[in-house]
Formats: sequence, C-alpha cells, structure tokens
Amino acid sequence: MSGTLDISALQERLRRFAADRDWEQFHSPKNLAMALSVEAAELVEIFQWLTEAQSAELDDRTRAAVAEEIADVQIYLARLADRLSIDIPEAVEAKLALNARKYPADEVRGSAAKRSGHEER
Amino acid sequence: MSGTLDISALQERLRRFAADRDWEQFHSPKNLAMALSVEAAELVEIFQWLTEAQSAELDDRTRAAVAEEIADVQIYLARLADRLSIDIPEAVEAKLALNARKYPADEVRGSAAKRSGHEER
Amino acid sequence: MSGTLDISALQERLRRFAADRDWEQFHSPKNLAMALSVEAAELVEIFQWLTEAQSAELDDRTRAAVAEEIADVQIYLARLADRLSIDIPEAVEAKLALNARKYPADEVRGSAAKRSGHEER
Amino acid sequence: MSGTLDISALQERLRRFAADRDWEQFHSPKNLAMALSVEAAELVEIFQWLTEAQSAELDDRTRAAVAEEIADVQIYLARLADRLSIDIPEAVEAKLALNARKYPADEVRGSAAKRSGHEER
Repeated sequence: MSGTLDISALQERLRRFAADRDWEQFHSPKNLAMALSVEAAELVEIFQWLTEAQSAELDDRTRAAVAEEIADVQIYLARLADRLSIDIPEAVEAKLALNARKYPADEVRGSAAKRSGHEER
Repeated sequence: MSGTLDISALQERLRRFAADRDWEQFHSPKNLAMALSVEAAELVEIFQWLTEAQSAELDDRTRAAVAEEIADVQIYLARLADRLSIDIPEAVEAKLALNARKYPADEVRGSAAKRSGHEER
Repeated sequence: MSGTLDISALQERLRRFAADRDWEQFHSPKNLAMALSVEAAELVEIFQWLTEAQSAELDDRTRAAVAEEIADVQIYLARLADRLSIDIPEAVEAKLALNARKYPADEVRGSAAKRSGHEER
Repeated sequence: MSGTLDISALQERLRRFAADRDWEQFHSPKNLAMALSVEAAELVEIFQWLTEAQSAELDDRTRAAVAEEIADVQIYLARLADRLSIDIPEAVEAKLALNARKYPADEVRGSAAKRSGHEER
C-alpha cells in the first residue's frame, strides 16, 4: 500500500529545512530522540480512551490525525538516523533477522507472554 | 545515506510474521501505538544521562543500540500504518508541506520558542 | 489505601542519594523529565499486549512489576519537582480545581470525546 | 518544600470525580498507564529544545506549565495505583531500598554508565 519511502531524499530535505531556520543547534540526537518520543505519545493520546475494537475503526477525522502523527514520527526518525549516520533499511533488516531467531513461530504461537517486556529484556 | 525503504514489502513481511505466530489478535492499532511509544522511550533511555554533545559522539556499542531501537520504531510504525491503511510517504509529504507553511524560515530563524509544544499546539 | 506520602522527606533522601554518588550533574530538569517518561513507558510496556480486562486482573508477579514502575515514576516526579521548587500537593490541588471547571459532570457524562487529546488541547 | 501528599484522600476524590462523569469505564489500568505516559511526554515536550542549563532556569510561565504537567502525572499515578490496590508509599520505600543495594555509592560515584538503561535492565 505505502510504496517506498526515499529516506535519503527525505533526510536531504530535512537538512535543508533545519539549515534554513538555523535549527541545527537544536537537533542533537538527544533532543531528536525526545521529540520523537513526544510524537509517539501524541499517537498514544489519540487511542488512549478508545477500545481496541474502536481503534481499528476510526472515523475520517481521527484517521487523519493518526496519519499526521505517523508522519511526525517518521520525520524525526529519519532526521535522528541522519544525524548519527544510521542506515534505516539496514537496521530494519538486521532487526527482522533477530526477531525471526528470537521468536520461533512454533514456540510462541498465540502467546503474548513470550513477547512481554519483562520476558523480552 | 539510507537509500530507500520498501514499506510495502516490509508491511507484507510483518503481516506474515504476525500471522505465523497468531499475533494479529494483539496488533490492534491501540496496542501498536503503545508498543511504538515504548520503543521510542528505549531510544530516549539511551540518551537520558548523556549531554547533547555526547549524544552526537556515540561509541560503537551505543550506536548499535540506537540503530536497533530505530529499527523497532520503524517496524511498529510500518505495522501500525498498515493496520489503518495509512500511506506513510503520502502522510510525510503532507506534513512537510504543512511544516513549511507553519514555520516560515524568515520568521522562526534561530528561535526555539516558536517550536515549543506550548506554542505549537 | 495508600495513606500519605511525605514528599519533603522523600526529596531530602533523594538529594542525599544523588549527592553521595555525585549524580547531581546528571539531574537537570531536562534529564529528569526524560527519565520519568522512560519509567512511564516501562509501565505501558507491562500493559501493551494485555486486554483492558486483563490489565485489571494482574497476577502477583506482574502486579509487583507495576508497583516497582509506579515507585520509579513517583521518585523521579518528586526529584524533578524538588529541582524546580514546585510544590506537588499545591499543583495537584490547582489541577483538580481546573479539571472540575473544564469537565462539568452534566456535560461530559459517559463521553470520552470531550476528554480526547485533540479536543482537550 | 512540598510537604505531604494525602494519597488516600486524593484517590477518594478521583474516584468520585470519575463516578460523577461515568468515566470508570475508561479507567482500566491499561488506559491509565497510557494516559500517564502521555502526560509524562507533555513534560518532556516542554524541555525538548532547551539546554540542560536552561531547563534549570525556567521563566514563570514555563514553570507553571511544568507544575501543571507534574500534577497530571501525580493524578494519574494515584488513580492507577488505586485501581490496582498498590500502596505508593510502600512501593517507594521498597524501591529506595533496592536502589541503595543496586548502586553502592563507592562503586558508581560520578558515573552515568552504571545507570544507563542498557546496564540497568
């Protein structure tokens, strides 16, 4: 559905956007991680009083609000990766391989227990 | 640097990964937003006691940890967008256009004030 | 159930704890806010794959994990307030008064809509 | 500075506040943990573009905004603990004892390394 995202081009545009506004001074990795987590929380905020079922059946206005927060997260994620020269597609590939080893389908089928944070860490 | 990310292909793989483990039942948009915010917080955790300067000069081990958390955020972001049929590249494009209107370079240059959450909202 | 919390005494102990470890240098309000949000995310992590019903019926081990994260949040909250000389009971009192005005019982009864972040802000 | 917080009384008021608005239906522990993390992120948002030094020298308006977010976190923390019958002062006491064992002053003095999330978990 979503096609491909040209992360290099996005990062180049974000670099120029920040430079034009003299905002590089604010864009330390520490600050960008904070900003990213704030945008993630704005996503959570949309869902916090909805049931799980309701969260899968959003009205158009709420869905548009979710799309905007998803964009914010994606933008800060690309910007943070750029500042640290981290290659997102490569990191995703490595993580998918790790997850496949960590959660063998036969062992974890249907179980959330194996996925809970306390087990996982 | 990061090239392009094939979000459609990633979403297809994540769909299969969840199906193989019977995990679709856990992947309501509400739960995925929570999981995404938890991964964002794991990014923040890496940076919380570092100075801004230190956050831009990570040792290899810490940089690898950041790459892994960035991958986790990207994975949940793709999965959430898939569950709600939200097109990430399109949402990003719309948000970049909005930001360009909202923060005219001439008016906000060098100023964080205009960007602070309390102003922004 | 929880009785009273002596926040002044807690803050005094946290001050000494930090001083004994030469950790005041890390405890800027900015860093403490980050740490607090990370602890809040660890709470979310415990609940992320549970249904709402399950979240109200925790086994002893999970309930103990929740208690520990609640303590972490309370500790960082007291420490942050101390660093900024913010009086927690006074701030809570002011916020309760504000909420009573903002959400008149007759108008918002049973409705989450009026509470959603997008309305609220 | 902050004196004592009567958590039992606060919880009783929050119970009544929710009951008067028929909001108990929304207050599952899962949802309250989400709401708490959103309020924690609103705290982070205030600090995200400030330097650590600036974060310790807030103007009155920003300090008032911080006080309001601190109150929100305290309120949701008390409400969540109430829903799970967790005793906050007791949980704090247990955590302080654990931290004293986990971070012996002689071993961790001046070092953030021992405190980083990756070590800690």
